[in-house]
Amino acid sequence: MTATFRGVIPPVLTPFNADFSVDTESLRRLVDRLIDGGVDGLFALGSSAEMAFLTRENRRVAVSTIVDQAAGRVPVIAGVIDMTTPRVAEHVADALASGAQGLVATAPFYVRTHRNEVIEHFRLIHEMAPDVPLFAYNIPICVHYTLDAGLLIEMAAAGYIHGVKDSGGVDAATRAMVDAKRAAGLDEFLVLTGSETTVDLAYLCGVDGVVPGLGNVDPAGYVELARLCTEGRWEEAAALQTKITSLFGIATAGDPARMGGSSAGLGGFKAALVHLGVFDSGRMAPPHQALNDEELAVIGRVVDEYGLK
Amino acid sequence: MTATFRGVIPPVLTPFNADFSVDTESLRRLVDRLIDGGVDGLFALGSSAEMAFLTRENRRVAVSTIVDQAAGRVPVIAGVIDMTTPRVAEHVADALASGAQGLVATAPFYVRTHRNEVIEHFRLIHEMAPDVPLFAYNIPICVHYTLDAGLLIEMAAAGYIHGVKDSGGVDAATRAMVDAKRAAGLDEFLVLTGSETTVDLAYLCGVDGVVPGLGNVDPAGYVELARLCTEGRWEEAAALQTKITSLFGIATAGDPARMGGSSAGLGGFKAALVHLGVFDSGRMAPPHQALNDEELAVIGRVVDEYGLK
Amino acid sequence: MTATFRGVIPPVLTPFNADFSVDTESLRRLVDRLIDGGVDGLFALGSSAEMAFLTRENRRVAVSTIVDQAAGRVPVIAGVIDMTTPRVAEHVADALASGAQGLVATAPFYVRTHRNEVIEHFRLIHEMAPDVPLFAYNIPICVHYTLDAGLLIEMAAAGYIHGVKDSGGVDAATRAMVDAKRAAGLDEFLVLTGSETTVDLAYLCGVDGVVPGLGNVDPAGYVELARLCTEGRWEEAAALQTKITSLFGIATAGDPARMGGSSAGLGGFKAALVHLGVFDSGRMAPPHQALNDEELAVIGRVVDEYGLK
Amino acid sequence: MTATFRGVIPPVLTPFNADFSVDTESLRRLVDRLIDGGVDGLFALGSSAEMAFLTRENRRVAVSTIVDQAAGRVPVIAGVIDMTTPRVAEHVADALASGAQGLVATAPFYVRTHRNEVIEHFRLIHEMAPDVPLFAYNIPICVHYTLDAGLLIEMAAAGYIHGVKDSGGVDAATRAMVDAKRAAGLDEFLVLTGSETTVDLAYLCGVDGVVPGLGNVDPAGYVELARLCTEGRWEEAAALQTKITSLFGIATAGDPARMGGSSAGLGGFKAALVHLGVFDSGRMAPPHQALNDEELAVIGRVVDEYGLK
Repeated sequence: MTATFRGVIPPVLTPFNADFSVDTESLRRLVDRLIDGGVDGLFALGSSAEMAFLTRENRRVAVSTIVDQAAGRVPVIAGVIDMTTPRVAEHVADALASGAQGLVATAPFYVRTHRNEVIEHFRLIHEMAPDVPLFAYNIPICVHYTLDAGLLIEMAAAGYIHGVKDSGGVDAATRAMVDAKRAAGLDEFLVLTGSETTVDLAYLCGVDGVVPGLGNVDPAGYVELARLCTEGRWEEAAALQTKITSLFGIATAGDPARMGGSSAGLGGFKAALVHLGVFDSGRMAPPHQALNDEELAVIGRVVDEYGLK
Repeated sequence: MTATFRGVIPPVLTPFNADFSVDTESLRRLVDRLIDGGVDGLFALGSSAEMAFLTRENRRVAVSTIVDQAAGRVPVIAGVIDMTTPRVAEHVADALASGAQGLVATAPFYVRTHRNEVIEHFRLIHEMAPDVPLFAYNIPICVHYTLDAGLLIEMAAAGYIHGVKDSGGVDAATRAMVDAKRAAGLDEFLVLTGSETTVDLAYLCGVDGVVPGLGNVDPAGYVELARLCTEGRWEEAAALQTKITSLFGIATAGDPARMGGSSAGLGGFKAALVHLGVFDSGRMAPPHQALNDEELAVIGRVVDEYGLK
Repeated sequence: MTATFRGVIPPVLTPFNADFSVDTESLRRLVDRLIDGGVDGLFALGSSAEMAFLTRENRRVAVSTIVDQAAGRVPVIAGVIDMTTPRVAEHVADALASGAQGLVATAPFYVRTHRNEVIEHFRLIHEMAPDVPLFAYNIPICVHYTLDAGLLIEMAAAGYIHGVKDSGGVDAATRAMVDAKRAAGLDEFLVLTGSETTVDLAYLCGVDGVVPGLGNVDPAGYVELARLCTEGRWEEAAALQTKITSLFGIATAGDPARMGGSSAGLGGFKAALVHLGVFDSGRMAPPHQALNDEELAVIGRVVDEYGLK
Repeated sequence: MTATFRGVIPPVLTPFNADFSVDTESLRRLVDRLIDGGVDGLFALGSSAEMAFLTRENRRVAVSTIVDQAAGRVPVIAGVIDMTTPRVAEHVADALASGAQGLVATAPFYVRTHRNEVIEHFRLIHEMAPDVPLFAYNIPICVHYTLDAGLLIEMAAAGYIHGVKDSGGVDAATRAMVDAKRAAGLDEFLVLTGSETTVDLAYLCGVDGVVPGLGNVDPAGYVELARLCTEGRWEEAAALQTKITSLFGIATAGDPARMGGSSAGLGGFKAALVHLGVFDSGRMAPPHQALNDEELAVIGRVVDEYGLK
């Protein structure tokens, strides 16, 4: 069942109207652009979707729009991320009603959490929809808890999770997950990396796919990168990875004295999509800080020099 | 206007029915017990309320029950805590509809946040209800961002916030807030400490009140402690503080090898309230781990030896 | 024996000649100024002494000069701080040869350390000089390990340590040490706070003394503050503490965009002592960054307005 | 000049006699074993050498023994690691007197440090021996400061450092160093990874060599791994890396409830070398905790099953 969630699965950004409702037309254009770029799946309501800034209603609109526009061309997995189990339960119901084919949950956050409590959290989410593949999302920079290989394999062996999206940023840890699943004979357990700058390395470690935020801007680049990896053309892959990484200039144009990494990063992605004609507006949910004209000009130049469109 | 939010303002726990709906009867008994104990106000939907585990509906039930049962005897402030501004906005509307007379918000969390974004966050919340006192909640252990004296005073001077609930755990920082507000001539800005074990110290620094989780179990003790402080009977206060701190044995009975600090701490508070006949059940929201019989027996003994009831 | 290490025990700064040898004449003037100010003891080779920047030879010169100049008027305890036990052993031998009457050691640092290893570390240091009082120095900001009340009391009960210098910055933790020693019947175990801005609070918690870096600049102020505390004049103490804290303006004059907290803080202390005629030079050991003329002028004004000399 | 510091350069362990002097005979056997295994250089006095536990005299003995035994067959670089510049200066003099051909220094530690102070630190060390290649050692787990690509390239461009040993554990950061040096036209700047479990990945990123602690136990394995990488046989490299990683079982045999990671890790390496007949004793410097017989038996089995000797 989970065999379909492999390859390049970008976390889809959320464009906004002026009143911060979801701009569904821009969102549909993005979905088409991603699928046209060759991606293997879509991840709705990830961190890149400004999921943390979306009301429950906006989350529902985003995921149902993505599922509707994907129209079965590629599978859609949906984040059900919230502080604790009872709140996640509501998102699970919404995501399934919207037609998502897989779920992605983090460890609890805001609250201080014990390993046993993390396991119970995923066990309960799994019980909410036992037939739907559930991915654990390792993102310690946001959640301040690390899902390590031992914990993941324990939950996989118990049947609670079908895979992991690892945004921990440490390739040695990603590799440890791959090695541990193989040692445990859990070959069907999927390891997806969230790293945008070491996709080649992650594939060399044996991951099953990648969830690249930057893939919103250059989906075809990541698709080509994954293809080179699966064909064993590692040095070409490394060279392409370095080229793609240069596109990250769009995510660092925002002045760190004025705004945080999310404003600069997601704002840069959105600005690039405006520059490329995909989004009508690059506005970000409050309290994000807006990029100024000078920063937007830098982003436009980076996109042009990179050669997109 | 904010002059009323002084003194002992416990963060009210949330009792649950078997289906994890709010047990409003137990909650009403707790509200009465707190008011009978002499508290000066009630803080609904704080961390101690398992707010992070409550659905939006459960939050509404909790705060409206507390407001209704308080019936104007003491003021009620309500937490509107969520990841970012758009989600907080929903809780603001709910809290005001439920009759809360003040609001409490943290910095954004899950997302990485810049100082400018924190200020914008509080500015926007203030704009949602400009006539309602808004308290900033400094709780870095949950939010992973520290609201320091400089930031607070900047927001106070701009009129965004009316006070702070400081659960940072560092009395020197609490004192810096008091000294800074005085230096800025912002005497009406309220500094409330969330520390349960240094109330005397915080009062000696000049705080306006305390929000003690342990005050759910011994409200009268904290009321007496605050009275000793305001009367300048510091050594008696210190001795009483040490005695009250011994009651914290109820919060550490849970085995740290089996559960996290929230399960042990809030679980201990709830178990004590069951022991005292206030709550029908000590159950905690998932994925909290339950205390076992041996641990519950320890809690009962600590409560009895302390001499409550 | 340890009963003498109570009260105000400043960590003595280290003045340098142009070649970064110890300027013993300036150091002798500082020692006299501190003793004339009424201090109860001297702490040589603490963090404020730029101990981390001193070669073994410079450490020897510093402590022997301090002991010689103190001439028995007040006791001298000496830091023996280094990464691990074998290196600390050399400093123990040096300190004792120089006439220090007590020793101060941190947990191991640079290396990752287990609780058992910390205990073994202090046990071995104690064995090097079983008749000399050994103080554990809790300074997690430097050592990245916290000595908590439970660990300290275990080592005190075993006879390894005679007291703690707590620079952890959390008064609740300092109080827990005092409460724990009393509960264990270890009344002779000394708790000294390293906090310069909450001396009154620490005394209200029951500490035996204070080791204030800022006491290099205003020893008489801290002596008066400790006296008010021991006389139970808490509100006068709090007011004096707030006044003394204002002198910290000398430690924050250095531009944080240009230098670290140590350069600004210790540099400010040294600059104040130059301004007061105690030190010939305020130079700091490399790679500290120097304060500029504008910053030095600010420091001079803060000292003058405070009313020193 | 620095062109020679490429390839596999293990950080040489330090065997001890019963009095914790350096067991030079065991050390000479280890040096021979490493060189016989094909390594390209030796790193004396790194973290794996228990450098933090060595007195100045023991450091001198260790590095001079290694240089003497290497006898020019491979180059030797020496750690000069200490808290700050004046203390590092002594180690620089010692290392050069002992014949080391390169130096390795960390950022200052124990003290809180500003970027400008880190640069000044390396500038001054470089000035002590301007003709000797100086490597910056990025090891935030010990030093609690991260040397990032921007800082390194700034220091490289200024001529202060000739390379970096990156033990930061994040391959994306290692890659950023490689990409940054290339973008800056600093092709001679050497990037060595300290990661033992992602050597293949680091080589695919373009590093110049590896400094593997585990290379003390299986030098030939790492030499073969590096060869496969330089020949572009990436999948064979990845498979070999996974095999070598399995040898890490020797570093985790020690019970984490009883000892820290250094005791278990370096203790495991030493125990393996005893098992292989290279070291006479596996004793570790205090306050390390010793492995017990059961743990030593596990280590022996891991070594045997791996197939060494």
